[in-house]
Amino acid sequence: MPINKGFVLASRPQGAAREDNFRFFEKEAPQPGAGQVLVRNLWLSLDPYMRGRMDESKSYAASQAIDEVMIGGTAGEVVASNNDRFKVGDKVVSPNGGWQLYSLSDGRALSKVDASKVPLQAFVGPLGMPGVTAWYGLNKIIAPKAGETVVVSAATGAVGTVVGQLAKARGARAVGIAGGPDKCKFAVQELGYDACVDHKATDFADQLKAATPKGIDGLFENVGGEPFRLCARRLNDFARIAVCGLIASYEGAEKSTLEDLRVLLVKRATITGFIVSDHMDIWQQALSELIGLASTGKLKWRETIAEGVESAPSAFLGMLKGKNFGKQLVKLG
Amino acid sequence: MPINKGFVLASRPQGAAREDNFRFFEKEAPQPGAGQVLVRNLWLSLDPYMRGRMDESKSYAASQAIDEVMIGGTAGEVVASNNDRFKVGDKVVSPNGGWQLYSLSDGRALSKVDASKVPLQAFVGPLGMPGVTAWYGLNKIIAPKAGETVVVSAATGAVGTVVGQLAKARGARAVGIAGGPDKCKFAVQELGYDACVDHKATDFADQLKAATPKGIDGLFENVGGEPFRLCARRLNDFARIAVCGLIASYEGAEKSTLEDLRVLLVKRATITGFIVSDHMDIWQQALSELIGLASTGKLKWRETIAEGVESAPSAFLGMLKGKNFGKQLVKLG
Repeated sequence: MPINKGFVLASRPQGAAREDNFRFFEKEAPQPGAGQVLVRNLWLSLDPYMRGRMDESKSYAASQAIDEVMIGGTAGEVVASNNDRFKVGDKVVSPNGGWQLYSLSDGRALSKVDASKVPLQAFVGPLGMPGVTAWYGLNKIIAPKAGETVVVSAATGAVGTVVGQLAKARGARAVGIAGGPDKCKFAVQELGYDACVDHKATDFADQLKAATPKGIDGLFENVGGEPFRLCARRLNDFARIAVCGLIASYEGAEKSTLEDLRVLLVKRATITGFIVSDHMDIWQQALSELIGLASTGKLKWRETIAEGVESAPSAFLGMLKGKNFGKQLVKLG
Repeated sequence: MPINKGFVLASRPQGAAREDNFRFFEKEAPQPGAGQVLVRNLWLSLDPYMRGRMDESKSYAASQAIDEVMIGGTAGEVVASNNDRFKVGDKVVSPNGGWQLYSLSDGRALSKVDASKVPLQAFVGPLGMPGVTAWYGLNKIIAPKAGETVVVSAATGAVGTVVGQLAKARGARAVGIAGGPDKCKFAVQELGYDACVDHKATDFADQLKAATPKGIDGLFENVGGEPFRLCARRLNDFARIAVCGLIASYEGAEKSTLEDLRVLLVKRATITGFIVSDHMDIWQQALSELIGLASTGKLKWRETIAEGVESAPSAFLGMLKGKNFGKQLVKLG
């Protein structure tokens, strides 16, 4: 049997996560039993939600167990199958192939994908969980009307990339928030945002104001922290805020606070936290729309690729600090 | 002509509102012109929203103008009419008869009411704006399922009184928050709350926990401040918070803050601010349900009645401090 390599969670972070919270392993890949499939993972998706799982069940999902393989969505290829639904060579995605080269599955969570028109790794990015997350929050919570202003934080991240383009497709004004001039330039020039504001700039508040001259009708929040606080002051009547992530707060450094609830009353605004796994009923609809856009070149995105499973911890820690530019992936094969 | 008496707004409060923010007036009542109706106001409703209007347009509605009669819902009797829809003796309610004995109307905002089965003043209380507010927030935002727990702050106030009873009617567990043992006792014994917690008690947090053993699914928020902060920690998955009022913050003394947005994400919870005047389409349905309940003795409430228009400012300031017990009214006639 081939050799499997990867990482387990060694310990829970105290404050910021560190490389020693993960422990490398190397052992023989398992043999598939009756009904099982062995998948060679080719791409690992690194996503902010993983940070929440590392903590002691503060998150919506159960904690990641200590000494178990780190959770993570993967795209790969079937290399052995005792399951009629899958044959060797099938390209598949899994919501939890994990931070490892090989994973076993009973097939229930595996989906076959057609990687002939778009690259395989897109199915763990804009055509996977991050893309469907964007679709749900934008269409089902914010639901912008033409001419409304939608602000998207982490605008060039895996989710924000898709939110901005879907908002534009609905005729809204899309305003991104991103860290640094390069990301802002990419957001406007490649992703089609009408404007993008650098949250690291000293005059961020003024720039945000200038970019949202008619206020904010929809806010797709991936970050929290100080930019959120400033956006909350610019809400229009009946504004909708979709809270998808609060990466600024995941490491405990910066609280994400709504400083005055009165804004919700005065503006009759709504804030909704969501997680896409509660809404699997929209998955197929969202995915076919996104695949349709991607197949015809109408959906753009950018990737940051770390090479080799060994690079997963440092790539993950970098992503939590915003070092990635676009979808953070680890190339495993 | 009879003499009209009442109050105008003399000045905007700096911090807490004071009696000298209001100025008494006394002058001849106006004559109704073509199409107009003169109403003798018999009951004035005092409501927390008025405090927001006294400020410089921070609220959803335009500010109350200086030197104009203080806004306020009234119930009264037509004493002169040049309008075919109204005759002398008709009992009517107005969303803004104002803090005065007589008001002129073109009839458009006046509604005739049947005060034969319920007292006239109920139409500015449980069968008026506060009741419909309760109905909207409970049914359209919280929409509790049987067995869920709904917490209501200012549980014996004009709105809270109705929220609790409607929640019970839907099979939910209704838990009130009120100021002091007398109000809590009334909430449980008369209004039918399953429990009521005194926010002035030193062990409020423990009492709240004991009263919500299965957490909080719906929160009807009228107050804000510290009790809100503690409730936010007890939310269940998919909790719904309807923000109807934040009376703890209206005088600037205590901020109402959501200290950690992460709870919305972890619990996939929603907070919605609302004001009933945005939802006039449900008014008739809500009102007929409430009148039906009241006519058969199934809707209970309590009133605090201040005597004479001269008492309006002190009654209003007392209400902002929670001195009222039930619906705060001023008896004008």
